[in-house]
Amino acid sequence: MNLELKNILIEQNQEGLDEFAARYQPYDLAGMLADLEETEQTKLISMLSVPLSAEIIEYLEPDLQYHILSRIEEPLYSTLLNELSSDVVVDMLLAIHPHQVNKIMGYLPQDYREKINTLMTFPEDSAGSLATIDYIASRKTWTVDHALRHIRKVGLEAEIVSYIYVVDAHGELVGVVSLRELILAQPEQRLEELIKKDLISVPIEMHQKEVADILSKYDLVAIPVVGQNNRLIGVITVDDLIDVIHEEATEDFQKMGGSQPLSEPYFKNSIWNLFRKRIGWLLILFVAEAYTGTVLSHYEETLSVQIALAFFIPLLIGTGGNTGSQIVTTLVRALAVGEVKFQHLFRVLGKEALTGIILGLTLGIVAFVRAMFLGVDVAIGSVVAVTALFIVIWASVVAAILPLILHKLKIDPAIVSGPFITTLVDGTGLMIYFTMAKIMLNL
Amino acid sequence: MNLELKNILIEQNQEGLDEFAARYQPYDLAGMLADLEETEQTKLISMLSVPLSAEIIEYLEPDLQYHILSRIEEPLYSTLLNELSSDVVVDMLLAIHPHQVNKIMGYLPQDYREKINTLMTFPEDSAGSLATIDYIASRKTWTVDHALRHIRKVGLEAEIVSYIYVVDAHGELVGVVSLRELILAQPEQRLEELIKKDLISVPIEMHQKEVADILSKYDLVAIPVVGQNNRLIGVITVDDLIDVIHEEATEDFQKMGGSQPLSEPYFKNSIWNLFRKRIGWLLILFVAEAYTGTVLSHYEETLSVQIALAFFIPLLIGTGGNTGSQIVTTLVRALAVGEVKFQHLFRVLGKEALTGIILGLTLGIVAFVRAMFLGVDVAIGSVVAVTALFIVIWASVVAAILPLILHKLKIDPAIVSGPFITTLVDGTGLMIYFTMAKIMLNL
Repeated sequence: MNLELKNILIEQNQEGLDEFAARYQPYDLAGMLADLEETEQTKLISMLSVPLSAEIIEYLEPDLQYHILSRIEEPLYSTLLNELSSDVVVDMLLAIHPHQVNKIMGYLPQDYREKINTLMTFPEDSAGSLATIDYIASRKTWTVDHALRHIRKVGLEAEIVSYIYVVDAHGELVGVVSLRELILAQPEQRLEELIKKDLISVPIEMHQKEVADILSKYDLVAIPVVGQNNRLIGVITVDDLIDVIHEEATEDFQKMGGSQPLSEPYFKNSIWNLFRKRIGWLLILFVAEAYTGTVLSHYEETLSVQIALAFFIPLLIGTGGNTGSQIVTTLVRALAVGEVKFQHLFRVLGKEALTGIILGLTLGIVAFVRAMFLGVDVAIGSVVAVTALFIVIWASVVAAILPLILHKLKIDPAIVSGPFITTLVDGTGLMIYFTMAKIMLNL
Repeated sequence: MNLELKNILIEQNQEGLDEFAARYQPYDLAGMLADLEETEQTKLISMLSVPLSAEIIEYLEPDLQYHILSRIEEPLYSTLLNELSSDVVVDMLLAIHPHQVNKIMGYLPQDYREKINTLMTFPEDSAGSLATIDYIASRKTWTVDHALRHIRKVGLEAEIVSYIYVVDAHGELVGVVSLRELILAQPEQRLEELIKKDLISVPIEMHQKEVADILSKYDLVAIPVVGQNNRLIGVITVDDLIDVIHEEATEDFQKMGGSQPLSEPYFKNSIWNLFRKRIGWLLILFVAEAYTGTVLSHYEETLSVQIALAFFIPLLIGTGGNTGSQIVTTLVRALAVGEVKFQHLFRVLGKEALTGIILGLTLGIVAFVRAMFLGVDVAIGSVVAVTALFIVIWASVVAAILPLILHKLKIDPAIVSGPFITTLVDGTGLMIYFTMAKIMLNL
């Protein structure tokens, strides 16, 4: 709650507001706007300049954008609406009731409406859904001077001006020229001499994660989206793709924690939604883990003879799980960013197995010391130590192989989450433990 | 291995090479360059145009950049060196031996050398370490026309041309104007009328993660870095910050897997390095987990009377760990991207506790069914079911609170990794289990 802003609004102090707004970035003003009462929101928007209001509104969540806009009167309403970036308008329209969509569409000019309608048909998380149509297109037959005059005419409305996309008479994308190159060129040069023809573009249906990967790889700040016959549909800007990079990393995090990814920010999820996203994996893991009961009941006799063996069950299987968890999180991420590929299987396996042997030896020694402190037999201590060694090696090998194989099979390797590998190692670890016990204790 | 490229190089086919290079992006050509033999690398670089060679070299790892450059003869060597972006040169110089640094420095002009020397003193992972000095600066007293002429003169060498930074006579940053605004303005307008004065800049010592957060928040494509008295030092471009976003997410992943983050890409780590990064947490967790042995030995008598209780130990503590792991990964990520803050503690706690109750009830029922299938007493089945309920609630509460408290205490919440919460819940879960057993079975 910003009291200074509230007072300015109560006093309707235009000069004070201009001075206040100049002190903050639009992103910060958006945060303040969201915290205001409804009537204050309307007042603030009507007192600020249209370009600044539009910029602020673009930072809000789609449903809040709609609610604030819906309380604004004409003609400011349609002026603001037309000032918003097309990708923002599309996101807002997708977030509200279809009935309201038609009303809003009525305030947009015919050709803009048609383009928005097309953008709205693109699937969620696709390249098309991220595209804006507020880019500058020009013809390859134009001269530099002609292009610059065109930019001066339409530039104020465009979201991207650093790159000018060049199309032919059929709307097919034939090249790109940067504003920098236009400035450096001679006014009478034709665009076709300047354009970069082997530019990178993406098809409408490409998944947003892949688009973000391309942007990161080639160090781009904008990527054109093309439809059939290479027709230019729109352009994706780097800021939207940075949001995608964050979103995708968040999803991978949640998957690695053994949960289905939440599609909304944390607080937007109801308890029911959190339950739904989590119960699936919890049940699968529960059923898989239930196998440990079968293993243990199978060794009931061994256990009742040597009850002290039970003391080390959580420690041994826990250590296996921790080792596996370290490896799978590293590998799943390395696969996601392309550092590791299936062809590296044996290199990864060798590296992890050797590291596992050194880790296992270290932990085996510590396990023996721990067992002695608990006052059990040296024989049992030896079983625990040897088991620690083998469980760590076993967990390392499984955790090294599984993510790479799943990636190869085009299954998201993130399903091998920490909890998944922990569960897998628990049952098999118990088998290693009791096999060792039977052999070493002659049971 | 690209055979077509190899043949072109053997035949020294300049025309073929030009045609080949035009078909690929510099990033892809960099990959091919890295795969070539040493003599072929040298040949390729000498046959390509200097700007393209420089662009390709910029995509390589610093040590490979040095090795390829060191085999190139003068005068191409110094031409190429001067063509590279200043941040690339700095990274390369930081990766090699100081003795070699001096040799390279000898090939750079005096003033450039001084600037590079300054950049090299900035701490790793700081804003300063990411800055390039290849930006365009101008004076506020200049006219638009003057500024555009200046850009035409220096623009080819600059890495960033979309923004022109305006400094006063002391080098103090006073504003920014975009190339777009220059194009849209009248030639005789002065820059001081056009510049945005409340621009966002970052100090040299700011951590790169914070810089990346600012860039994401305010949708910027470049951020100026300032030193004392607001002196402009350099500019960070969005592509370098995208790399930072990836790096920081990777580090968080590795931390959440219960390991110290690897500072290098996966394959650059020796087995010894993997061991060092992992053993610390494995030992801490091992010692913490060893506590479960104490708990179990404390209940030795209960266990020997009801050996069937042992069957469910891995299942119950595993389920607690899985529940906790789901929550901490979600919350640690939500804290990292700023979706959740300490002030939300009670909201988070309420949400997670309620979700935990529903999850616990579901899993409790499943646990009872599982116990019956294993053929144990109904009484023991009931203990297992009630314990499952309480362990899930307990894990939810702990996992909801801990990350937020650590964040508040300015301790990286990522130390509450999946393995950490699993270990914490293991010992306490066993206490819940045996307390329930003693009460419900009258032991």
